[in-house]
Amino acid sequence: MLIQPRGIRLAEPLPLECGRTLDQVEIVYEVYGELNATRSNAILVCHGLTSNQHAAGRHRAEDPRPGWWDQAIGPGKPIDTERWCVIASNVLGGGASTGPASIDPASGQPYGPDFPIVTLADMVDAQARLLDALGIERLYAAIGGCLGGFQVLTWMSRHPQRLARAVVISATSRVAAYTIALWKVMREALALDPAWRDGRYQGQAPPERGFQLMSRIGALIWMEREALEQRCGNRLIGDADRLGYGFDPEFEVEALFEKVGRGDVTQLDPLALVYLMRAMDYFDLARGHCALADAFEGSPVPTLLVSYRSDWRYPPAEMEKIRLALEQRGWPVSHRTLDSAFGHGAFVYDSEGVGALMRSFLETSTT
Amino acid sequence: MLIQPRGIRLAEPLPLECGRTLDQVEIVYEVYGELNATRSNAILVCHGLTSNQHAAGRHRAEDPRPGWWDQAIGPGKPIDTERWCVIASNVLGGGASTGPASIDPASGQPYGPDFPIVTLADMVDAQARLLDALGIERLYAAIGGCLGGFQVLTWMSRHPQRLARAVVISATSRVAAYTIALWKVMREALALDPAWRDGRYQGQAPPERGFQLMSRIGALIWMEREALEQRCGNRLIGDADRLGYGFDPEFEVEALFEKVGRGDVTQLDPLALVYLMRAMDYFDLARGHCALADAFEGSPVPTLLVSYRSDWRYPPAEMEKIRLALEQRGWPVSHRTLDSAFGHGAFVYDSEGVGALMRSFLETSTT
Repeated sequence: MLIQPRGIRLAEPLPLECGRTLDQVEIVYEVYGELNATRSNAILVCHGLTSNQHAAGRHRAEDPRPGWWDQAIGPGKPIDTERWCVIASNVLGGGASTGPASIDPASGQPYGPDFPIVTLADMVDAQARLLDALGIERLYAAIGGCLGGFQVLTWMSRHPQRLARAVVISATSRVAAYTIALWKVMREALALDPAWRDGRYQGQAPPERGFQLMSRIGALIWMEREALEQRCGNRLIGDADRLGYGFDPEFEVEALFEKVGRGDVTQLDPLALVYLMRAMDYFDLARGHCALADAFEGSPVPTLLVSYRSDWRYPPAEMEKIRLALEQRGWPVSHRTLDSAFGHGAFVYDSEGVGALMRSFLETSTT
Repeated sequence: MLIQPRGIRLAEPLPLECGRTLDQVEIVYEVYGELNATRSNAILVCHGLTSNQHAAGRHRAEDPRPGWWDQAIGPGKPIDTERWCVIASNVLGGGASTGPASIDPASGQPYGPDFPIVTLADMVDAQARLLDALGIERLYAAIGGCLGGFQVLTWMSRHPQRLARAVVISATSRVAAYTIALWKVMREALALDPAWRDGRYQGQAPPERGFQLMSRIGALIWMEREALEQRCGNRLIGDADRLGYGFDPEFEVEALFEKVGRGDVTQLDPLALVYLMRAMDYFDLARGHCALADAFEGSPVPTLLVSYRSDWRYPPAEMEKIRLALEQRGWPVSHRTLDSAFGHGAFVYDSEGVGALMRSFLETSTT
């Protein structure tokens, strides 16, 4: 499946939750499959924190890796592009769409850290404008995990009338203190790199060492002690038979961590990542409401919730609170919990289980 | 209990495992209680990674905080200074004793990163020299947790004839891959701070931001998601009723993390810490042996092993391997596992359980 990214400039300025307005917004997106005549077969796939609009297929035949959810999206796959037209857009602030690296029309310079804070509501409102431009009134489904799950939940809260189905994976109705702390420590890792220049590094060398450190802090959090132990133990690189008595990497696990985050700074703009993490900090569906259920005031949307037992950062117990809230509002909802060694990343890297659930859910008809 | 630190210069140069020799070694230590006439009531207390020779009492009456294990050491306490003479020494490389901040007699300048790598064996050999100087042939007991537990295990392996009893707490016979990776990431946090100057910051401002980041990475690893959730959730500082839409700390958990590591750089020399962490990386009692049991070739020492169920980094299952190895060599050994919410730090911050075990163990007579 060879794919070309597309871009669209929104016709109107976009007012943001923070009170500022973006006068010019471009949304970059990809499309897999064909929109039918009634424009009723569109599925919006929302990406996670470290992925983007390139969800499936390849840009060139020789691309070594396909889009991030190629396991799940394509002809005959769980999100079957022979039946549905899949739209995957880069979120507002996400790097490809308008974000901190974009040129501020007011100054002619990149926004950098002067880019306004964007929220999940802003991201979803921009996606709704994209659908307006494409002439899609109502989605057959919105699907997403992690930050993408937050987007789907926000769709369910803000624009339920435009959704026929929703699939929320590995998400919660707000992030935990732990996640807010983790993002803070990661931002500090970037800020310590002199190349960060307070986020004003556009047009210069990106903060590569800070980005690597940030990625390695993340790796420590995602990785399990026992998995790392099985893989590396305290073996020396190349099964060396004597110690080096220095600080150069000489353990296998050090060599493994040397690779983490290396080169990725060219794939993921660190400042854009910082903006997406802040959007997650601010995400709280219940904020401004007496109870979480009050966040779902619109017409009921049949919803599938999927969580993973091993995902300690976004645990099934918190997904269950979403199920209860939706049930309280009379929404048709089911919550399925899966096992996978991949924890939070399971829906991407071990998608068979969630794929089967989505396939069956997408085939059910709704009113 | 008012205490004065003491210092002693070793009479002879100290050869190190790395092949280098330290010509001048000073060991700083404290003593609580009185040595008896036969010099048979000395207990060596070995400190952990982030503590030092100041284990009990106060240096001045107005000191806000006593030594790190004041809960356990003192008159009538589990390590009763009315019966035993407790010696707590700063390890070789540990900051107060000879280490990277010391003056290299060859150059007249601080060693900095040219200080040789020291190992657990080197630390313990230096302690043995200290005991020689104090005229103590055999210890009533050696006791320690974390890095201190590694020291006691190393005593048991290298100098068992000089121990009448051993207490090993919250330790393993080698560190896990996870710990090696964690120390690596922490070193990288220091190295990213321009004030680190490749470890040559002696006489200049210490790398305070790097040290804070290192401490905060540690806090992420030690803290439990649920504990942090109970304490902070996603509450705003001062229960603010609106969001700031910026990157300044506005969540309670951000304010909490702002405090972590602040000011501590004056207490703990970052370069010394890096040397101690590297010593832990290299610690592996079984290295050079066919089996762990072969590390304990000397005369049997009655040994108490204590682990904590909640200490996932130094888990009871790995302590149990030590028990089996000692039992195989015919050593009198018992392994007790305790519960505490403090995990790895429990022996310091929640010492009642381990205190009772130590009290009873120290009162048993041995041959």
